[in-house]
Amino acid sequence: MIPDRDAIFAQIQRKQSFLCIGLDPDLDRIPACCGEGVEAMENFCRDVIACTQDCAVAYKPNLAFFEQCGSAGYAALERLVALIPSDCMVIADAKRGDIGNTSARYADAMFNALGADAVTVAPYMGFDSVGPFLAAGPGRWTILLALTSNPSAKDFEFHGDQPLYERVLDLGQTWGTPDNLMFVVGATRPELLRTIRERVPDHFFLVPGVGAQGGTVQAVADAALNDRCGLLVNSSRGILYASSGEDFAERAGDAAREMQQEMAEILGARGLV
Amino acid sequence: MIPDRDAIFAQIQRKQSFLCIGLDPDLDRIPACCGEGVEAMENFCRDVIACTQDCAVAYKPNLAFFEQCGSAGYAALERLVALIPSDCMVIADAKRGDIGNTSARYADAMFNALGADAVTVAPYMGFDSVGPFLAAGPGRWTILLALTSNPSAKDFEFHGDQPLYERVLDLGQTWGTPDNLMFVVGATRPELLRTIRERVPDHFFLVPGVGAQGGTVQAVADAALNDRCGLLVNSSRGILYASSGEDFAERAGDAAREMQQEMAEILGARGLV
Repeated sequence: MIPDRDAIFAQIQRKQSFLCIGLDPDLDRIPACCGEGVEAMENFCRDVIACTQDCAVAYKPNLAFFEQCGSAGYAALERLVALIPSDCMVIADAKRGDIGNTSARYADAMFNALGADAVTVAPYMGFDSVGPFLAAGPGRWTILLALTSNPSAKDFEFHGDQPLYERVLDLGQTWGTPDNLMFVVGATRPELLRTIRERVPDHFFLVPGVGAQGGTVQAVADAALNDRCGLLVNSSRGILYASSGEDFAERAGDAAREMQQEMAEILGARGLV
Repeated sequence: MIPDRDAIFAQIQRKQSFLCIGLDPDLDRIPACCGEGVEAMENFCRDVIACTQDCAVAYKPNLAFFEQCGSAGYAALERLVALIPSDCMVIADAKRGDIGNTSARYADAMFNALGADAVTVAPYMGFDSVGPFLAAGPGRWTILLALTSNPSAKDFEFHGDQPLYERVLDLGQTWGTPDNLMFVVGATRPELLRTIRERVPDHFFLVPGVGAQGGTVQAVADAALNDRCGLLVNSSRGILYASSGEDFAERAGDAAREMQQEMAEILGARGLV
């Protein structure tokens, strides 16, 4: 359990890293040496975790990739979550959200049945779809979608004179605290990341979109680092698929170490380690 | 497979019903005779399906209730989906949605691994989060959240000079057709249901919010029935928990029959059967 933002910051300082590794096990890209089907996904993720855990403060399994293999995939996800070291947060990237009594079930599913520390939540249906996650108690984190990294974010997230994502940030800050609520803010629009940090000075941001989607760690840090770091920068494909051969886990470790070192330099330059 | 809206309408005419039964198996309300845990959920839903299938054109399992029991719950869901008769649609009420390559996995998970005919999708992240569901091919339905039935729908769904839910309806109609896209429109605001039907004349609406949440079948039909019915009205708690005793399935059948008969009258009065 990582009960509050100070505890996250302490881990970031200890590891000199604010790296979150996304576990998106793509059966079309997993090396043949891992086997086939669900077994391959599990072997692949287990070995990647073993070789990267010193460099990461969080792992973010993407539930879609596991659900694709049905209940067998879901069972593999449960086993993987159980072996993630306790000094790393487990973020269930599930994008859940429904009416209140259903969201309460999703919160129970993610925090209790699965054992995640955090879950990504879609805001569309409003407070009663988000509140049950926030009510789950200390050490359970809700990570609300605000400005996502994908091109179609423009379709709805910018809707209105005040863009919808700003309304999500404003209302969200009245619902949760910096100790139980983070926001998803993509790396692909660094100019907006800066204004979002002004609007939301204290909450952690989970930042996807570095690497394959075009963002950089340095640009994200320049725009949105705060006095407790305040950032979890996610990388998935750049680490998972650093090599397509039998050395995939070792190369994933190298790629994670490279990002960690860049982050250590950034934290050092800002006097945070 | 129910390939297009004419095929749905044919089922509605044959059964003289536009009833969708929500499968939200609540362990706190399932009768003791069903057993415990996952086994109780599965026994309960199986018996309810057996006693209601003549009155329903769709079943809507709510994934949260199954995920709450982890992979064992997910496996029970798979077995339940497999035994739903082929003349009923299976709507996976999952509220999924993510960046494109992830939404493609969710579509595969719901349509192929689980075997659902339809899945509910959250629109927040825009087209690239919805498109992969629409691209899943004939007989696969995307049901996009527009105006939901919960009180907090006001937080974001009404955001902007043009309310966000109208923008979702407008853009959604440019993404999908009446043969692969429906919208979720709650029964709790019948006055808006009417204006939404004017805006969206042809697409089916999945309408939650009848019964426990306060809407009525008659008001929904008055506001939004079209020339192919165009409505799937959902009831969950009113049918599932019609009795808390050993006669739960028989009483669920009675409750479903009562709704079916009300729907038959409405369809008859409009010359649709």
